[in-house]
Amino acid sequence: WRSRGRAHILRYVVLKWTLCFLLGALAGAAGFLTNLAIENIAGVKFVVTSNMMLADRHLWAFGVFAASNFVLTMFAAVITAFFAPAAAGSGIPEVKAYLNGVDAPEIFSPRTLAVKVVGCIAAVSSSLHVGKAGPLVHTGACIASILGQGGSRKYRLTCKWLRYFKNDRDRRDLVTCGSAAGVAAAFRAPVGGVLFALEAVSSWWRSALLWRAFFTTAVVAVVLRALIDICHRGKCGLFGKGGLIMFDVTSDTIAYHLPDLPPVIILGIGGGILGSFYNFFLEKVLRAYNLINEKGYGYKLLLAATISICTSCCIFGLPWLASCSPCPTGISEACPSIGSYGIAAPSGLFIPVILTGATYGRLVGMLMGSRSTLDHSLFAVLGSASLLGGSMRMTVSVCVILLELTNNLLLLPLVMLVLLISKTVADALNANIYDILVKLKGFPYLETHAEPYMRQLTVSDVVTGPLLMFNGIEKVGNIVHVLKTTGHHGFPVVDEPPFSDSSVLYGLILRAHLLILLKKRVFLPSRSLFGIDVSKQFSADDFAKRGSGKHDDIEDIKLTAEDMEMFIDLHPFTNTSPYTVVETMSLAKALILFREVGLRHLLVVPKSSSRAPVVGILTRHDFMPEHVLGLHPSLLKSRWK
Amino acid sequence: WRSRGRAHILRYVVLKWTLCFLLGALAGAAGFLTNLAIENIAGVKFVVTSNMMLADRHLWAFGVFAASNFVLTMFAAVITAFFAPAAAGSGIPEVKAYLNGVDAPEIFSPRTLAVKVVGCIAAVSSSLHVGKAGPLVHTGACIASILGQGGSRKYRLTCKWLRYFKNDRDRRDLVTCGSAAGVAAAFRAPVGGVLFALEAVSSWWRSALLWRAFFTTAVVAVVLRALIDICHRGKCGLFGKGGLIMFDVTSDTIAYHLPDLPPVIILGIGGGILGSFYNFFLEKVLRAYNLINEKGYGYKLLLAATISICTSCCIFGLPWLASCSPCPTGISEACPSIGSYGIAAPSGLFIPVILTGATYGRLVGMLMGSRSTLDHSLFAVLGSASLLGGSMRMTVSVCVILLELTNNLLLLPLVMLVLLISKTVADALNANIYDILVKLKGFPYLETHAEPYMRQLTVSDVVTGPLLMFNGIEKVGNIVHVLKTTGHHGFPVVDEPPFSDSSVLYGLILRAHLLILLKKRVFLPSRSLFGIDVSKQFSADDFAKRGSGKHDDIEDIKLTAEDMEMFIDLHPFTNTSPYTVVETMSLAKALILFREVGLRHLLVVPKSSSRAPVVGILTRHDFMPEHVLGLHPSLLKSRWK
Repeated sequence: WRSRGRAHILRYVVLKWTLCFLLGALAGAAGFLTNLAIENIAGVKFVVTSNMMLADRHLWAFGVFAASNFVLTMFAAVITAFFAPAAAGSGIPEVKAYLNGVDAPEIFSPRTLAVKVVGCIAAVSSSLHVGKAGPLVHTGACIASILGQGGSRKYRLTCKWLRYFKNDRDRRDLVTCGSAAGVAAAFRAPVGGVLFALEAVSSWWRSALLWRAFFTTAVVAVVLRALIDICHRGKCGLFGKGGLIMFDVTSDTIAYHLPDLPPVIILGIGGGILGSFYNFFLEKVLRAYNLINEKGYGYKLLLAATISICTSCCIFGLPWLASCSPCPTGISEACPSIGSYGIAAPSGLFIPVILTGATYGRLVGMLMGSRSTLDHSLFAVLGSASLLGGSMRMTVSVCVILLELTNNLLLLPLVMLVLLISKTVADALNANIYDILVKLKGFPYLETHAEPYMRQLTVSDVVTGPLLMFNGIEKVGNIVHVLKTTGHHGFPVVDEPPFSDSSVLYGLILRAHLLILLKKRVFLPSRSLFGIDVSKQFSADDFAKRGSGKHDDIEDIKLTAEDMEMFIDLHPFTNTSPYTVVETMSLAKALILFREVGLRHLLVVPKSSSRAPVVGILTRHDFMPEHVLGLHPSLLKSRWK
Repeated sequence: WRSRGRAHILRYVVLKWTLCFLLGALAGAAGFLTNLAIENIAGVKFVVTSNMMLADRHLWAFGVFAASNFVLTMFAAVITAFFAPAAAGSGIPEVKAYLNGVDAPEIFSPRTLAVKVVGCIAAVSSSLHVGKAGPLVHTGACIASILGQGGSRKYRLTCKWLRYFKNDRDRRDLVTCGSAAGVAAAFRAPVGGVLFALEAVSSWWRSALLWRAFFTTAVVAVVLRALIDICHRGKCGLFGKGGLIMFDVTSDTIAYHLPDLPPVIILGIGGGILGSFYNFFLEKVLRAYNLINEKGYGYKLLLAATISICTSCCIFGLPWLASCSPCPTGISEACPSIGSYGIAAPSGLFIPVILTGATYGRLVGMLMGSRSTLDHSLFAVLGSASLLGGSMRMTVSVCVILLELTNNLLLLPLVMLVLLISKTVADALNANIYDILVKLKGFPYLETHAEPYMRQLTVSDVVTGPLLMFNGIEKVGNIVHVLKTTGHHGFPVVDEPPFSDSSVLYGLILRAHLLILLKKRVFLPSRSLFGIDVSKQFSADDFAKRGSGKHDDIEDIKLTAEDMEMFIDLHPFTNTSPYTVVETMSLAKALILFREVGLRHLLVVPKSSSRAPVVGILTRHDFMPEHVLGLHPSLLKSRWK
């Protein structure tokens, strides 16, 4: 866009910041509304139940409690299962995969957004042990994606100016800002939100993005503050302190010295082990739930109902079982949270982990008793940090989020120490929780580093199947046939004699662009070059990137037998600068190129000049370890595995 | 390294973290020592002078004050000019350029390190308006580089294990951590340090690095804390509060509402304008100083002496001129700081800007008077933020550093607002201060984005000069001749018949590796392939990347006429997977590849198969706007400029 006129650039820049502002305002409002609704629904439920309890009608109280929970859970599960299955779960794995380049269908559609917000409110207020941070991140990303693609064409909310943003890069930037805004809205932690997006979600990062994400989260913080200020005038029902987690670290001057370190180190090691166990069990439970959920709607709802009833029983029953100690045990919180995650409803993992961690920290603090001079509330904060470090493996962002929650910078060195220890311990045991979820969902996520065995292979070792390519001027029938019989998204274009001296690689054409050419029927009667004016038949909007998951289908284009015999000149529509690698290039280095530059197609050119000008095309799937190992099973046994 | 055995990987990982730990400890200690020395020297000077003042011996007091300042300044200037000219200035531009891939000679040598620390102490305690943050960043980077290259071979401080780190990537990572540690040591702001490295210094960033930089700064914070704790027992002379800038925002509950916004916005706009003026004048002054400094040692020292005497006069004289108001005027601080930066002594810009900004903020606060309910100390913080945002253009890192300095999170939204406004205003006027400095120093810094006119060019448009390449088996005489007559660092290796069917690109060989081959004299009597065992004559250490700025010289290698007639088989020593682009590739896209993957050489292969297998080689200099515009002056007038 830098090559456009001044007016265009100005319009683009203004629009970019306006979108970020809108994104921040909407995400802030969404976060506030979610909190408001949850507090009111859960609050009414609590008031009614406790009034009954006070009137000694325990069975009735349980009935109302369980029934309301059941209704809320089923509501969340039904809307998720029937209207937007993509809204189930936390949404962070989806956002992470999208920012890595995986464009799963429907993950950012308006329907997903609506179900996510409503479902999250219902699920959280139904006393399930699920959080709202993850859904808010997904909500932020959805808002960003919808804003970026200029509203939804389906629902006729679009704008002409927004065509500047109809490309992968701008949309990706906006989604990154959206996920930062989501975290900022969940924790009222603007800096923490930016760091979360940087550390846990994004795959590419530019300095300019830091600045824009920061602006977005600042808007979120201001909007949240303003809305809460309005609420303090008392028109928001049962809305309390903003529904945000607040650690009450009361002692103003937290003093800690060398003798306090051993308990903190023990806490960190314990948190790391617990965190990795949490990941381990979550994976097992999710695998089991996935089996159940795959069987159909009935099973999905049955599972949700079972979890809801069990949770109600646990919450209602536990206070009777345990003696009335000031500190609930850690296990009683962790298990329901693992159990609740897999059901078909929007549900986050972040806040349950924080709460469980706080309980764990208090428990450790109580066990330490007089051996440590540290405050119990401090132990709670450190416990949260250790469990977050152990299960999510984020460091800087957790640290900053906790600082922003506690509003006390003196904690910093201790929190850092605990995070370092727990992450190191947990990393030795298993993988990051989001990586586990991404893998479970089956997204082809590209890792930053190449596997060791990839250094032993060249790109020609993984290129499979016959290569389909087009001539610079191609017969319509051929194009239709190729598009119908394959699912590839990009095709090399090669100029053959007599249009060039020898066979020459001209570029790469995308499936989406071919479909538009076919739709517009810019056909030639014979194999000759177009005049210069053919590209004027198209506007930039025709070739704009469609919204996430939307594309034309070859089956929808009806062509006559006559059309099939005509020709298309592909030259004006071909990307003439595709990235290429020589066939002898090491697979590991090709992966670095593919990943760092953020490609979708990489052409393989021959080493020797006697062959066709292009010998293969690499896509994301060709770099997946499963694919490579499937082609070369001997590597499994080699020392590089 | 992932392909090595388990023991190697373990050793590498342990070493990596040990190095980070050492780096943190050393940087923390260096920061502490710098502060301690400055406080003591400046303190003694102050005590002596004020005693004389109290005894009414004003002229004597001025004499002692000016003389001590003069001696200290001259000491700093002399050691910098004669021993390590690379230690002059703040050092942040050098670190930034290094992390962008520009390996300037001597910037990280032990001598530079020593001069930097000692010179910084002398310069800061000589009452010049220079800071210690920049020099500490350079110090941290120096320590990192020296640790990473296994000590200095020259001073025989090396270790065999460290050979794992003798490559560009690991050294770059360490230097990034080092610069983060430097900021952390200067401000005792661990999170701010990491963000500073991310936002202002580094050109490439990986998630794993965030974690390691964070560890390093945590170590710095702990070491600083421990050392200051020791000092509080009173053995450190005049060492006070740790020599750190402390904003005393006393009012515990800072309340601000909508009516407070206008003054804050005005403050932000003013800060942006002042910041960009600051950059503008600094550039002018530096250009003038550079002209003087280039004339020789005498002029350098004369300049330093003049500045020192002027500064002494100003500081001593001003209190007489101004009436004894509680608030010094902003201008009186900004000008000396601009004047002091360009002299040949280590000197930072960060702290002068903070101090000037604080003064500016107080001034605005006083002018506002009763119209604003905000505290004056709050205005000082916001003034610092606005000037930092206006001159350094950092956002998130400044915000976090100020938060860590003030230890008050409630300031966050206001600081963010001020930063946003001042950066936006200043960006509209001129460039970032570090970019100006990098350009003034003439480093070939690669920008993240391509210039618009680069989209109009293909790579073949900028390839210049005859391409020098080697055969797979090359005559020694040829190699020596080429190395002697050119300064290129990489050469394509091409296999010609009869060693292959046709002329084929085999790979890329580095000058450094060729020099080692010549040194070891692994020559062949005739043009035939080596046996397999030739690579055993070399250890990995031979091909390890040398320390920054060090390399062999072709003139040092003595070969007989007989040797010149022999051959070398280059195949085992060639990088067989060089990155390539087709000659029709757009220059802008090639730049993205070059920059994102972090290359030093990019081979250009022909589009058509009838020509040589490689038609050019692109290096960093070929992408510099000056080079491109020099080749195509018509672009200067085009609409894309």
